[in-house]
Amino acid sequence: MNRRQFLMATSASVAAASLPLYASSNHDAFRIVALVFDDYETLDLHGPIEMLGHMKGVNIELVGARSIIRSYQGPKVVADLDTNQVHHCDLFIIPGGMGTRSLVKDEVFLEWMTRQCHVSNKVFSVCTGSALLASTPLLEGHKATSNKQAFEWVSGLNSKVQWQPRARWIDDRQFITSSGVSAGTDAALALISQYRGRAEADRIATLAEYQWNDDPSNDPFAIEA
Amino acid sequence: MNRRQFLMATSASVAAASLPLYASSNHDAFRIVALVFDDYETLDLHGPIEMLGHMKGVNIELVGARSIIRSYQGPKVVADLDTNQVHHCDLFIIPGGMGTRSLVKDEVFLEWMTRQCHVSNKVFSVCTGSALLASTPLLEGHKATSNKQAFEWVSGLNSKVQWQPRARWIDDRQFITSSGVSAGTDAALALISQYRGRAEADRIATLAEYQWNDDPSNDPFAIEA
Repeated sequence: MNRRQFLMATSASVAAASLPLYASSNHDAFRIVALVFDDYETLDLHGPIEMLGHMKGVNIELVGARSIIRSYQGPKVVADLDTNQVHHCDLFIIPGGMGTRSLVKDEVFLEWMTRQCHVSNKVFSVCTGSALLASTPLLEGHKATSNKQAFEWVSGLNSKVQWQPRARWIDDRQFITSSGVSAGTDAALALISQYRGRAEADRIATLAEYQWNDDPSNDPFAIEA
Repeated sequence: MNRRQFLMATSASVAAASLPLYASSNHDAFRIVALVFDDYETLDLHGPIEMLGHMKGVNIELVGARSIIRSYQGPKVVADLDTNQVHHCDLFIIPGGMGTRSLVKDEVFLEWMTRQCHVSNKVFSVCTGSALLASTPLLEGHKATSNKQAFEWVSGLNSKVQWQPRARWIDDRQFITSSGVSAGTDAALALISQYRGRAEADRIATLAEYQWNDDPSNDPFAIEA
């Protein structure tokens, strides 16, 4: 069984199995689980958390392989949840960063991530977070984008993904994938607009004094295909 | 002795005393120390860290009253340094957020922060971080700004500060104070431009796919004075 067959078999067995209940103490909350790994890119994670965290009735938890995770910039975060199990959620956030360079080859991690995506209503990758998704069959047949300076590397990981070189973000069924770093903040506001309406997204952008690029086709950092 | 007299007397005694050496293991690095406290605003801290953390030869540490600190949005960070002492640094970052509402009345904290500012070459507040500075005499006689939705509260804390209602950020001698949340990211790039040149600031903004508002007088969220 090669890696892809393994991952697909795992997905099928997870889908058939009974799944763990929410670990969160707030069962009524809109539950967001965000992945952290060493050398994750700071703003890939915290830009979306800033915006999504201002929705009412939201609960945001970090999930990681260890309890303390170091960002590429140095400061460390605490993982609330571990990767020994999967965590049902409304939204699963996958940041990018230099740490993805080793994780795309980590089969244990990719197997967990695949199962985690199967218990997440929506999956939101930022920057090279889409490299992790592209290292499994999850994104195949979907339109997706990624960091534009790492685009050749990411798009080379999986030719069955319809990679978009000009997009601030792409929202295609279960997966929303953003371009590099700051684009994740714009995509997060687009999600808020879907979940809670445009007025709520505007309210949050204004309180954060953030000039939202709200047009997914407006990509100032696009590359030639 | 009232609070202000206490803080000023403390400042004078600190200035006269010998000061602790760098605790960092990297003595040659450009040392950034960033304050964290419960209910700090996520992007106030992590937007500047994203940008400043891409400067070469930089070392960023968090300082807090406890080892684990919870953001307003929920996720937690690890404090590398404690507030039992002060930490010499090139840049001291003070984020804002709901946690400032109690800290402006916390004399033990304000006394430490005053001493910390005295061993920091430059002090950079984001959003309502300037409320903390304004609760001491530190900003008096300086131009400064703050979050525009909290402007009345912050400016009411100290009438000896020259509050600017229309400014993305204000850089006045030792203190650079930014407007709300996202404005800190723009101000951080302005600092990088000062420290390392415009080309380096542009390089970092581009790799983060960030549309930098590089004009401190361009304040889309300004209020009427």
